[in-house]
Amino acid sequence: SSLKIGLIPADGIGKEVIPAAQKAIEALGSDIPKPEFVPLLAGFEYFTRHGEALPEETVSALKECDCALFGAVSSPSRRVTGYSSPIVALRKILDLYANIRPVISVAANPADKPDVDLVVVRENTECLYVKQETITTTENGREARATRLITERASRRIGKMAFELALDRPRKHVTIIHKSNVLSITDGLFRETVRAVPQLPEVNGRFDGITIAEQLVDSAVYRLFREPQIYDVMVAPNLYGDIISDAAAALVGSLGLVPSINAGDDFVMGEPVHGSAPDIAGQGIANPIASIRSAALMLRRLGYAKGADRLDKAVDEVIREGRVLTPDLGGHAKTTEVLDEILKRI
Amino acid sequence: SSLKIGLIPADGIGKEVIPAAQKAIEALGSDIPKPEFVPLLAGFEYFTRHGEALPEETVSALKECDCALFGAVSSPSRRVTGYSSPIVALRKILDLYANIRPVISVAANPADKPDVDLVVVRENTECLYVKQETITTTENGREARATRLITERASRRIGKMAFELALDRPRKHVTIIHKSNVLSITDGLFRETVRAVPQLPEVNGRFDGITIAEQLVDSAVYRLFREPQIYDVMVAPNLYGDIISDAAAALVGSLGLVPSINAGDDFVMGEPVHGSAPDIAGQGIANPIASIRSAALMLRRLGYAKGADRLDKAVDEVIREGRVLTPDLGGHAKTTEVLDEILKRI
Ligand SMILES: CC(C)[C@H](C(=O)O)[C@@H](O)C(=O)O
Ligand SMILES: CC(C)[C@H](C(=O)O)[C@@H](O)C(=O)O
Repeated sequence: SSLKIGLIPADGIGKEVIPAAQKAIEALGSDIPKPEFVPLLAGFEYFTRHGEALPEETVSALKECDCALFGAVSSPSRRVTGYSSPIVALRKILDLYANIRPVISVAANPADKPDVDLVVVRENTECLYVKQETITTTENGREARATRLITERASRRIGKMAFELALDRPRKHVTIIHKSNVLSITDGLFRETVRAVPQLPEVNGRFDGITIAEQLVDSAVYRLFREPQIYDVMVAPNLYGDIISDAAAALVGSLGLVPSINAGDDFVMGEPVHGSAPDIAGQGIANPIASIRSAALMLRRLGYAKGADRLDKAVDEVIREGRVLTPDLGGHAKTTEVLDEILKRI
Repeated sequence: SSLKIGLIPADGIGKEVIPAAQKAIEALGSDIPKPEFVPLLAGFEYFTRHGEALPEETVSALKECDCALFGAVSSPSRRVTGYSSPIVALRKILDLYANIRPVISVAANPADKPDVDLVVVRENTECLYVKQETITTTENGREARATRLITERASRRIGKMAFELALDRPRKHVTIIHKSNVLSITDGLFRETVRAVPQLPEVNGRFDGITIAEQLVDSAVYRLFREPQIYDVMVAPNLYGDIISDAAAALVGSLGLVPSINAGDDFVMGEPVHGSAPDIAGQGIANPIASIRSAALMLRRLGYAKGADRLDKAVDEVIREGRVLTPDLGGHAKTTEVLDEILKRI
């Protein structure tokens, strides 16, 4: 049987890094079922030509795939009526409720522990991302409102995911990120629900050895920069998770290194944490590492640990050697040159 | 005539740093009108004893003051019915619509330019801080909702404040922070309104020389760590401003250095950006610098530039000498020892 992988490069450097990830997956040979790639359309550029950012065919084709890789999507520079981010929509449509973003520095010596080794577990379907917004005109001018939704159900399942991931990590430590000193009801519910996960009857005491801490989002960002080693698994509502994962990426040298998966109970979509990078798009210098690591995360989640390990090890070696790197890491190499180095080592 | 200054130490190290700022102000002698200090109560500790966090007497006494200094407030570790943050309330009651947070590194040599020299201009009255939250129970469990309010009026006045501050700075550059790729209506309104400030008839072309950039909040935090020198004035809705100012504080070595003022059209309240720090409260080792600098910002805003300069210069010297510093800066000194060094130099 084959492994059907949807490919949605979308905008900007997405079109450069997703093909690189495809080649890396192809190089795995018999470590994974024969991959079958399904190219799919979406994005802001697609929107400007066709009036929709996420065509129905893409959604229905994805439902036939085993997994997918998503590139990056550009943001309109002004408000554009009818436009809505396709990645936000896909997360909801496919119920990919967990955005898992490991941020790990590569130690110079493979035997050393990395300085930064944490994973952001971001709730992926609600918070301000429900995009329920209204605007009215009053005598004082316009007033806009957005709804921030936090449910017990979504908080519980993201909490479970965080504890599940913590179980597999040496430090077994979960930090809950919230702002319940201001949002006592919504973030209060998030905090309380995640805290209560280890006591759920269905988890059967499995999470008992895990330690729990919590932090206000503002001070979490501060401490992330000052003492990143205090973090192991960070679990956060959607928007805080978005911000914290970018902050963590700064610690390891480049957004171009940080992968993620959008995971649900029956689908997984890899996605580099970086954006479409319009400033460098088309120059062939985008870092393919975040996408290749996203492919590795995706394969690992599907149970192909051996294939995933080979991708990660090849990337680690190229970073350690430090000879062939893209400009975001201070190098002069092209996307294809970095890819070739990685392919040689797979 | 005298200068009536309300003092609200509130919780934790607030009680240690606000008295230090009081002493520093007293040392200014005739550079300011004779200060008259009005001690006022508020905070979480006060709440636990009296069932309210912000007594009515504090609010009415503040209305008789020329300005105030607020310390820090502790956060309940669980949801506490009836408790609401007094600092958030004060900002609204006194219409202190701008939270101005300069983040400046002290160069080793007074002649050198600082590496980081930016100011976060945070909208201080709306966004998720309107605290309109509801919770209901459905068949799937509890669901909580919060309203995020962004008005044209508040966005415009904070925009004006940001441009006003930019005018006085050598680089004259404003970066608008938003997340309009997701919140196209609320953050769209914020972005659009701030962008349009220079064209308002009443500003009369005064802001024409100011350059404008914008950034999504996630990537703004990333870039803040990677290239802080790209920022001059950052203007942001309330919650993003909260997070960004803590992130910027990490760049200059300690939250214990970063001051702020909550400013309205007719009142100003200084407030260190740090929190109540329960872990070190009562030990006499809190850094008094953020509070003393907050006093300086407050005095500057009231027109007492000479007094403000003397406070800032004294603090700069103590930091540069590096002999007497609190533990957050790697030193071993007590609050009072740092204060004494500063007082000697005022
Ligand atoms: C493109 C944008 C809608 C998206 C998000 O905010 O989730 C991105 O920043 C991310 O982190 O994947
Ligand atoms: C204490 C808290 C309510 C406050 C805020 O979020 O505004 C604090 O973090 C600050 O930045 O002044």
